[in-house]
Amino acid sequence: MRQVADRAGVAMSSVSRVLNNHPDVSESMRARVMTAVEEFGYEPNAVGQMLRQGATKTVGFVVGDISNHLQAEIALGAELALEAQGYTMLLMNSVNNPQLDAEHIRLLIRRQVDGLLLSVADETHRPTIEALEAGNTPYVLIDRELDAQSPPWAVTSDHRGGITSAVEELVGLGHRRIALVGGSPHVRPTRERVAAIEEAVARYPDVSCQVRSGAFTEGHGAAATRELLEGKLPPTAIIAGGNQILIGVLREIRGRALAIPRDLSLVTCDRIPLAEFLSPSLSTIYRDPVAMGRAAAELLLAQLAGQPAQVITLPATYERAGSCSPSPDAVAPTHQ
Amino acid sequence: MRQVADRAGVAMSSVSRVLNNHPDVSESMRARVMTAVEEFGYEPNAVGQMLRQGATKTVGFVVGDISNHLQAEIALGAELALEAQGYTMLLMNSVNNPQLDAEHIRLLIRRQVDGLLLSVADETHRPTIEALEAGNTPYVLIDRELDAQSPPWAVTSDHRGGITSAVEELVGLGHRRIALVGGSPHVRPTRERVAAIEEAVARYPDVSCQVRSGAFTEGHGAAATRELLEGKLPPTAIIAGGNQILIGVLREIRGRALAIPRDLSLVTCDRIPLAEFLSPSLSTIYRDPVAMGRAAAELLLAQLAGQPAQVITLPATYERAGSCSPSPDAVAPTHQ
Repeated sequence: MRQVADRAGVAMSSVSRVLNNHPDVSESMRARVMTAVEEFGYEPNAVGQMLRQGATKTVGFVVGDISNHLQAEIALGAELALEAQGYTMLLMNSVNNPQLDAEHIRLLIRRQVDGLLLSVADETHRPTIEALEAGNTPYVLIDRELDAQSPPWAVTSDHRGGITSAVEELVGLGHRRIALVGGSPHVRPTRERVAAIEEAVARYPDVSCQVRSGAFTEGHGAAATRELLEGKLPPTAIIAGGNQILIGVLREIRGRALAIPRDLSLVTCDRIPLAEFLSPSLSTIYRDPVAMGRAAAELLLAQLAGQPAQVITLPATYERAGSCSPSPDAVAPTHQ
Repeated sequence: MRQVADRAGVAMSSVSRVLNNHPDVSESMRARVMTAVEEFGYEPNAVGQMLRQGATKTVGFVVGDISNHLQAEIALGAELALEAQGYTMLLMNSVNNPQLDAEHIRLLIRRQVDGLLLSVADETHRPTIEALEAGNTPYVLIDRELDAQSPPWAVTSDHRGGITSAVEELVGLGHRRIALVGGSPHVRPTRERVAAIEEAVARYPDVSCQVRSGAFTEGHGAAATRELLEGKLPPTAIIAGGNQILIGVLREIRGRALAIPRDLSLVTCDRIPLAEFLSPSLSTIYRDPVAMGRAAAELLLAQLAGQPAQVITLPATYERAGSCSPSPDAVAPTHQ
């Protein structure tokens, strides 16, 4: 540090302030110190490391939709893990607007967070990727995949495992027409669920699937269910790909006076409060959102400590409950 | 601005940077400019005003528990309203730890947010009040009351109206022993609900109430319900004071194989997803959380625009549903 101070012609305290990202440092001072640092031949990464280490002790969390219970629980898990390590977390909600994802990432980087946790609304939005690549701030993806250059740090869910188990049980119960009402196709969970149901169904020549991707909203859940049930070959089992979609699916089923599981079997993804009091209970592909948030925070801290990139996959487990029963195919449909 | 620049002996651009809270300004530059500003005899408030106006275009939101659906929806409402006015919102979750409330307020003020929206976990925590009074950053309380010096800006809910209507209906149905399972006594919603039920019940000489305040958790909901139902004079109607409390209340009722509303009438506060699919449907004291968040954001913008302090009260409306019926008092209790 003394050598850098001498080379830059500034006080030791100024070098310290620059390297610790102190807010009261002028741009010219920062440039002088950084030039001197670079002249000593440090790797850019190592410099980044120096700049980062405990710099501001804050982490930014960019979330697509905080009113989604799953996302709120992930944020809670991350907050608890970060807080235990002396970090504070700044949460920014993109209200499912990809443009806000990018703006929030830029703002958090400008405000010198040490790292980012990202559960963005749209993986394919170029400005989001550009903001990350321009920023050089470490980040961890939460069940997202970005077409970025750096090796990925991520926590992902094993949606394939969960969907495959659900489909196998439904097929075992005699269901031959299974539908998935999926969320946004621009995020990993939907893509993985769609790929999984198509692969699982392909193993059975007499089983087919219909997929309706769209958005993680009640509106999409209801509209897609209506379309499916009014189609020529309505499904005998529906998988709701998210807790907000579930509300719409259930409303549409209730509106048609269909009985679950007699007329239609139902599987949902992710637990939500009150679901335990529904009758029949809902077969659910479960994952632990608090554990996901915690794992994401721990990965970010590992990255800040200089460890190599890693992706952790956590389970998504199918739990059978009362909303699935043998297919009503043999019986005359009551809903047409 | 020219006069200030001349007095401080700095460039106009430097004055602008200081007044706009630009991050790349040294502490000494800031001090020189602010001294010159003060020498011109501006009121400290007016200086604050200048500093604030569009300074960073960011607002901090300190929330006690983001995994509480009500709070997440309030945050969503605030986010949408702020975003429409070109502001971004930084959300900090205190995981119901009052110490984190205070730390988050200090951090957001240090990071120069233009204002704060506060739904803190504990109104009585002195460091929270001290952080606000030291900071001089405008803030709006969301259903909270602080023992602070400045005239309050707040959005509040009319809990009294909602509880009073619920109690009147329960009394009309013949209930004579009504209980409230309340959340933390350190926040306004619990205090108002407690005061309201006690006042409402006092109007009827033969009606009594039991209040169990504690925490906004499933655990408290279950423990308080157990205690009430195992007491000498168990209530015939329970009001659950929050959506997390509700889960615990329902679990305890189910565990005792009590039927709602035959054995016990139930009223809950605040709607949550899936509740519409419960059978029987839940009588609910409803308020619009998105509207609350929006109103809080609008109040903050009004405050930044220099308007005088105001408190807005939004309705909390009792909506009768299937979970309330005539008191089973005449019938032998089935649950002892």
